[in-house]
Amino acid sequence: MNDEKNTFPSSENCAACGCGAEGLPWSGRGTDLPIAGCRFSLYPMSDRYVDIILGALKETDTSAVWSQSDALSTVYRGRLPYVADAVKALFIHAWQDGVHMALEGQYSKGCPGDIDGDSKLGLEGDAPNAAAVRDRHFPVLCKFALYPMGTGDYIQHIANVWRAAEARGLCPETIHYATRLSGDVHDIFDFLEEVCASMDGKVSHYIVHFTINCNSPTAE
Amino acid sequence: MNDEKNTFPSSENCAACGCGAEGLPWSGRGTDLPIAGCRFSLYPMSDRYVDIILGALKETDTSAVWSQSDALSTVYRGRLPYVADAVKALFIHAWQDGVHMALEGQYSKGCPGDIDGDSKLGLEGDAPNAAAVRDRHFPVLCKFALYPMGTGDYIQHIANVWRAAEARGLCPETIHYATRLSGDVHDIFDFLEEVCASMDGKVSHYIVHFTINCNSPTAE
Repeated sequence: MNDEKNTFPSSENCAACGCGAEGLPWSGRGTDLPIAGCRFSLYPMSDRYVDIILGALKETDTSAVWSQSDALSTVYRGRLPYVADAVKALFIHAWQDGVHMALEGQYSKGCPGDIDGDSKLGLEGDAPNAAAVRDRHFPVLCKFALYPMGTGDYIQHIANVWRAAEARGLCPETIHYATRLSGDVHDIFDFLEEVCASMDGKVSHYIVHFTINCNSPTAE
Repeated sequence: MNDEKNTFPSSENCAACGCGAEGLPWSGRGTDLPIAGCRFSLYPMSDRYVDIILGALKETDTSAVWSQSDALSTVYRGRLPYVADAVKALFIHAWQDGVHMALEGQYSKGCPGDIDGDSKLGLEGDAPNAAAVRDRHFPVLCKFALYPMGTGDYIQHIANVWRAAEARGLCPETIHYATRLSGDVHDIFDFLEEVCASMDGKVSHYIVHFTINCNSPTAE
């Protein structure tokens, strides 16, 4: 809980983004803010999951994002490159040899009335975790789904993203309700960031849900 | 991999649902099928995660759903009450005293061109797992987000669902990009099913993403 929640006057808020939008679309301050965010949960399938998560958090520089955690997930908010940098670094720092681990998350930007957690929007410069993780590589699996909201041509945006994944060599495969990718951890995380960036100016509100895992024991 | 995927003629498919829709909305056979589905991943944070998952799968009756698994997730497809019954039963059967566990998933219905995995749509009668899990109760936390696709009034649908959660006593709280709920495991799963059912006839294509966990060590 943080006290910023108390700035919402109504008990009926937007369940897609946690914003204060009530009823029909409401163009609040947040609609025009260049603020992206990622809500995520990290799941190391190990008895040592607490130590793995806390250790990764300790190694990750979150100075360029606004952050809030609860018993289900953590959210980072700020400029997209910094949010994506922090989420990728957390996953890479949490990787342990032989430990099956998954990260589920949702990138989002543009919910009407998305109005708090914007304290880091003025930052500029290099992403703070890039140098520390640049040389760490391992293969991951990913599934993701893009949701462009409030538009009748959402399938066209989704098809464009599919083609982009193919062009990046990420082996997109159709599965029910999502697209699967596989590749190096950097290529997958960077592609998800690219998907988000590509929506800017095309739709006012989008969400990208994703799951990334490593060291899966499941043979395919 | 299953050979049904080979029925898609194009390499460019809908990344929101894995259907064969290409380019602009395509009204295929699937659009009118009364087929729902849930893609989910179960994460027991334990060294024994494989045994926990396999044990729960063994106890869950999946005879009323079409199922497919890969290294990232499993999908159940069929009539909504049977899909919801199987997902809830799997989670309840996987519960272990003191083991922190999360289930992430997405219910969906109505993607244009959602055309396979429909072999169980003719079934009727009681949900096969209901009796076995009816008397097992424990508290869970949940976050969810509803995405009504292709419509400009999506915020209105989301607001209605928020009010329904409040009416059911599930303590909805706004968080960035989602709504949090808490309650008994049956009440939470049944509410998510109710959200899906409530979209029927209102929007042609919706997705409900959710995360449910139990035995969290995080104090709030």
